[in-house]
Parts: sequence; C-alpha cells; structure tokens
Amino acid sequence: MSGEAIAKEANTAFAQLKVLTNTERSQALEKIYKSLKEHKSSILEANKLDLENAKAKNLASSLIKRLDLANPGKFDSMLQGILDVANLSDPVGKVTLAKKIDEGLNLYRVTAPIGVLLIIFESRPEVIANITALAIKSGNSAILKGGKESYQTFKVMSNIVSEALADTKVPSKAIQLIESREDVADLLDQDKYIDLVIPRGSNELVRNIKSNTKIPVLGHADGICSIYVDANFDPVKASRIVVDSKTNYPAGCNAVEQLLINKDIAGSEVKNLIKALVDSKVTVHVAPELKSLVKDLNQDYVVDADDDAFDKEYLSLDISVKFVDDVRDAIDHINKHSSKHTECIITENEDTANLFLKSIDSAGIYWNASTRFADGFRYGFGTEVGISTNKIHARGPVGLEGLMSYQYQLKGDGHIVGEYVGGGRNKLFVHEDI
Amino acid sequence: MSGEAIAKEANTAFAQLKVLTNTERSQALEKIYKSLKEHKSSILEANKLDLENAKAKNLASSLIKRLDLANPGKFDSMLQGILDVANLSDPVGKVTLAKKIDEGLNLYRVTAPIGVLLIIFESRPEVIANITALAIKSGNSAILKGGKESYQTFKVMSNIVSEALADTKVPSKAIQLIESREDVADLLDQDKYIDLVIPRGSNELVRNIKSNTKIPVLGHADGICSIYVDANFDPVKASRIVVDSKTNYPAGCNAVEQLLINKDIAGSEVKNLIKALVDSKVTVHVAPELKSLVKDLNQDYVVDADDDAFDKEYLSLDISVKFVDDVRDAIDHINKHSSKHTECIITENEDTANLFLKSIDSAGIYWNASTRFADGFRYGFGTEVGISTNKIHARGPVGLEGLMSYQYQLKGDGHIVGEYVGGGRNKLFVHEDI
Repeated sequence: MSGEAIAKEANTAFAQLKVLTNTERSQALEKIYKSLKEHKSSILEANKLDLENAKAKNLASSLIKRLDLANPGKFDSMLQGILDVANLSDPVGKVTLAKKIDEGLNLYRVTAPIGVLLIIFESRPEVIANITALAIKSGNSAILKGGKESYQTFKVMSNIVSEALADTKVPSKAIQLIESREDVADLLDQDKYIDLVIPRGSNELVRNIKSNTKIPVLGHADGICSIYVDANFDPVKASRIVVDSKTNYPAGCNAVEQLLINKDIAGSEVKNLIKALVDSKVTVHVAPELKSLVKDLNQDYVVDADDDAFDKEYLSLDISVKFVDDVRDAIDHINKHSSKHTECIITENEDTANLFLKSIDSAGIYWNASTRFADGFRYGFGTEVGISTNKIHARGPVGLEGLMSYQYQLKGDGHIVGEYVGGGRNKLFVHEDI
Repeated sequence: MSGEAIAKEANTAFAQLKVLTNTERSQALEKIYKSLKEHKSSILEANKLDLENAKAKNLASSLIKRLDLANPGKFDSMLQGILDVANLSDPVGKVTLAKKIDEGLNLYRVTAPIGVLLIIFESRPEVIANITALAIKSGNSAILKGGKESYQTFKVMSNIVSEALADTKVPSKAIQLIESREDVADLLDQDKYIDLVIPRGSNELVRNIKSNTKIPVLGHADGICSIYVDANFDPVKASRIVVDSKTNYPAGCNAVEQLLINKDIAGSEVKNLIKALVDSKVTVHVAPELKSLVKDLNQDYVVDADDDAFDKEYLSLDISVKFVDDVRDAIDHINKHSSKHTECIITENEDTANLFLKSIDSAGIYWNASTRFADGFRYGFGTEVGISTNKIHARGPVGLEGLMSYQYQLKGDGHIVGEYVGGGRNKLFVHEDI
C-alpha cells in the first residue's frame, strides 16, 4: 500500500475515533492489554529472533539491551503501562475557556485530539504498546513505523494489536503498523493527512526526519545540557549533581555534556569538583585555562577540549569543562551553544539563580538539581510521549497533553456579525467569562 | 545585511528582551505610541505616496482601501491598539503548573516568549504598529517584512519605531523592519535563529511561505468555510446566518464558501433560502440536483457548480450549494473538503448539533451562528495575531497567548536522580500539586 493510501486510511479512521467516548477508548486498551498478555510467549519468541539477529550483526550492547523484552520486569511493565494510560482521566473534551459573547451566544474552547500521528522509532519494541495506548486514549490515529532491529517482535505484536481492535469500537485502521519495507519518505510527504511526526530514537534519526518533512515534528535531535557552577556554591551539592547528571545514564538526552565553572572559584575547589568526575571514570575535556589545575588528576581521564567540544553531544562518560566569567557569561554561552533541552545552575545565591532561571532559553532550567530529572515520569506526567526541544506546541518532557489540540465551539441562536460593532451596526459584545 | 546576520541580531536582542519586566516592555510601547502620534503628518504623507503609486498601477480598490491610513479613524485606532496591548496583563512568567516532586524539589511550568518571530505581511501598514506592540509585550523579537505596496509608509514608520526604542530598555534590534529589497527566501532559511513565521496576507503569500521554510508557520492559507442546514431548521435563522456569513465581508477568510442542504428539506424552503442569497447579489454555484429548484430565481445569479466548486475559496459574492443526505454526510463532506477553519450547523435539534460539534475536525465549529464570528476581536481576545488552521500550537483566532511558549523550572537543593526509583535506588516521588 502506498504512503498516501495508508495516511488517508488513518485520517478516515481518525474521524471515527474522534467521536468515541472515553469508556470506548479505554475498553479498547484493556482488550489490547489482555491480548498481549495472552500472547506473551509468542512475542518473546519473536523477540528472541530479533536478539539473535542483533548479536549476529554485532550491534552495540546498549542497543541489544533496549531490544530485549525478556529483561526482568520489562514485559509486565509494558503491559501495566497500557492499563495506566487506560485509567488516566479523559483528555478529550475538557473545556479550557468559556465565554459569553452576547445573550444566547457562548464560546467554548474544548480539548480535542490532533488527528493523525506518524511515530517512527528504532529499537525498543515496547514503544508499540506505549504509543498505541497513548494514541487511542487521546483519540488520535497513529501510523507506527518500527526499526528493522525489532522487526520480528514488531510483526507479532502488530498482528495481536490489529486482532484485538477488531473486537472494539476503535476502527482497526486507527493504529496501522507499517513494516520496515514500507517507504518512510513517502509517509513524510503526506502532510495533507498526517498532522504530527514523533520520532523516537537516535539524534541521526530525528535530524534526518526533521529535514525531510513539512509535517511538524515533536522531539529533540540533540540534548546538549549544561551545568553552571556559580562562585557562591556548595561543593557537596555540586559534586553530587554534576556526577549524577553525567553518570546516571550517559546515553540519555538529559545527561550533562558541558560544565561551566565560575573563574573566581578557588583552584582547589575546582580541582575537587573535576576529581569527582574523574573518580567516576568520566573523561574530562578541559579548556586550556583549566589544564594546570587538573595536572595532578589521573591523566587517563583528562584530555584537551576539541574545537567543537562545546557544541557536541557525547552520550558517553565524557564532559567538556571550561571557565566562565560570571553568571551572565554562562547564560550567553548556554543560549548560544545549548540545544535548548535542560540547563542547571548550582548556586546558593537566590538572585543569581533567578537571573539564570529567567534568562535561559531552554525547555528546562534547574537550580541545584540534576539534569537527569528532565523526564515525564519524574515530572509526574504518568507517561511520556517524548522530550521536545521545539519552541511551539509542547516543550520539554511531553505527556498525554502534548497529543492534544483544541477547538472553539460557538453556540448561538441565529446570531449574525452584521448587527455588531465592527460588523456594520452598533451592538456591543458582552465578553464575560462563564 | 544578510538574512543570517539579521536573524542572529534578532536572536541576541531576544536574550535581552526576555529578562525585561512588564513595566519596561509596556513603557517601550507607550514611547512608540507617542512617537507615532507626533509624526502622524509625515506618516500620512508617506502613505499618500504609496496610495498614488497603487492608483497609478491600477491595483484593486480593495487593496488600495487596505493601504489607506487616512481612512477615518484608522490612524487613531492603530495608535489606540498599541496602548491596548500595553495595558494587557503580563503574559510572561505565569505559573501554569506547580508540583512538589519531593521534599525541597519543586517543579513549575512558567509561560515564556517563543523567541524570534518573522512576520511577513502585504499591504496594511498598521500591521507594523500592531505586531510591534504584540511582540514587545510578549517578550519576543520580531523581524517585520512589509509588502512593496506600503513601502513608503513602512520606511517612515520603521524609522520612527527604531528611534523611539533607542530611548527604552528594549534593544533596538528586538524589532527589525526589513525593506522590500531584502531577501525573504534568505530569512526563511534561518531556522537556527527564527522560531516562528507569521504571514499576514493573501493565501498565495501563505502557501508560498509554507512550502519554502522549515520554520513553523502560524496562519492559514485557505478559509473554505461551510454551513450545513439540517432538516430540522429555522428558516429565519438560516437565511440570516447564511447571508451574513457570505456577504458581511466576502474577502474575509471566515466568509462561508459552501452551503450543504439536507435533501429532506421541502423544495420551497430550499428555494427561499437560496433566494435570500440571490437577493443579496450572491452568485450561487449549484450542484446538478438543485438546478430545477432554482430555475425561477434571477438567473443572473445562478450558475452550474464547477468540478472544483467544493474545494475552492471564492473570497467574493459566490457560494457553492449542494444537497447532502444527512448530518453524517455533511460531516464527511466537510472533513474531506474544508480547510479546517470554521464550519457551522443550522439546526433546532440539540443531538444533531452535538454530533456535528463533536465530529468536525476544524478550528471553529458553530451552531446557529455566522461563520464571521471567527475573529480575535469578536472572541474577546482584545487583539489578534492571526487565524491559524494549524493543528498544533495555536488554533483558530490567535491572541497574545499564541506568541507564548512555556519553560519548566525545577528548584532543588542538591537533588540527584540516582537516589530515586528508576534511577538506581528506591526513593519515591511525591508528585503533589502545590
């Protein structure tokens, strides 16, 4: 089937899905939950094939780990995720504005699904369950395109989902699972039928998608996060936060990549802070002005900063370190070099913190807390669609809300514009909140 | 100056503008207001040159009318608009979510400006004042590119604005007015520095911009609005609404372009409804099944519907008319053919109305009210950035809110992820609303 045909079917299914009740949508999720649970063994068998393929191809161990659905607790938590989403409050039809325009003429702004989502992801097969749940709950159609690494798992799970939906009010074309052979480029051209693309995977994947579609893309290519350590700082907090931000999960987009240190901090304190990183096996890429300060540290973990050291996402146990003059210099540096994901200031001075919080143009701005907190689960959103570095629509960790739009409903009784001021006559608008 | 240099300067100015207080931003608007007021005569003189040029070139009278700042009340209402925006409540820094993540670790979602706006408009010179006010009030930088028709007015006004800003806290590069010679294509490439493009003008302008930039575009190309007249309808309301929607301002994007009539309505009533349009000098483009019904009407205003009659924006005293089987048929037709701007149902049946309100996938869905109400002023938003048919970010008539984004601020006291569940240890999150 062509990309256009797939997208058109998704769009038609959306029209049906849009009018279902919350109960009907949640029941479909419960059905999917049950079917996946029943077919656990066939899913894990298919997953085993994918794992064997991945090992045969010598894929990175981090990728293999992400692929593995048999990891303790992973399958069950995938299933539980579906029920959790089913039990969330209905995101559709919430009235977020109600205004009396005139007697008998009332305006309502009501939350509504966006339409058709195209979700492209790489290895993690549990994304199928997660995104299917989020899409159905929010009343959106979804076209899911998985990576070739999880092809076998994907094929089995997609059949189970399709069969499960056949028994529900949700049209089966509301969730279409496209196998690896299908042409993504063709789907990325369907801006007439597809409203939002959500890529979940490497920054190469996201960057490639962003430059090949007119459809809005929700996500982030890079996560170049920074920490600035102010002159007035607590060394214990600083070491804890810097080490956690770097080492808790270095491959995460919310891991810190740059450490900016106020130049007025005593050399011994700077050295201690960098030592905490080196002791945690982090390679520090130091700017020239710091070299003499770190010469006593284990030189296996100390290298010179490259020219692009401050425009780079390592995704590994590496960090770039430099001095800055003061908080303003740090702000300038971050606003120029960051990917607008998450930045942190470590300071005991509230005024300095507030200036930083106000000035930084990123989705997340932290004061004395690890950048690793930038995550939908940690923010308490229950579930996460992704993390967005866009500056319009959803920003930062995106929960179910990010899949919602709104519509204006105007209810009148024969009202016409021609009678009002600006429209030809003199009737005035009331404009009162209801 | 190159597009890149202009965009970069706007971006640098944004960093300064972002931290100004509401008072500082509003004071800059008052300064601009005073300067424009003082220089009224030189502005109107320049405007006269533009008008003479337009007349010499035989431009459409509707365009000339839009160009003319000397129209009674227009200059004063332009000035008043600046003060109105200055007096709006501060859109920056509103806390829209506050959550305790754990003891001493609090998350806030705070409204923030988007960044750098590129506004491209055609004739109306008052857009300069309007957009300058909106941009500064919301803390966004703006690059304004006017049409060649208003070049003289634009040049004078832009100098006045620049000089006025020199005396304020708003950096002068926060508002850059680009003359017609500058290359728009070059600016549309600056997705690194420009966050949102707002085109205000013809659908050709908008369509052209949408297909030539990776930057998100806020606006609408077409306004193909529909009215569906249900079997259970009030003929008086129907005539009033249909005639107002078509004739109140046919060039508006919120004017109706398609009339869908339930086929079960008596022929005489259908004829009366269409007669009301013909009596208002509207040319009705009728589908074949309606031809015999309208044969007694003034045939100067009755023509056959073309093949593309239901995918077309007339922007004139023309309307396409056809029968539909029922409300579901109308919904299907609209979801396929509309531009997702504004659609209306005329019915006395609440259930039918609710089905329509729930099923239509457009920014505005009206029950017994003219489509011409789709407008920021009529909605009570005070001012209007434009009307958006996008499905993400802002939708429908967009007020100041549409120029806002948000950021997450997390305030901790040395908190690290490694101690929490999911991060390596077992501490639980609190996730309580503050």
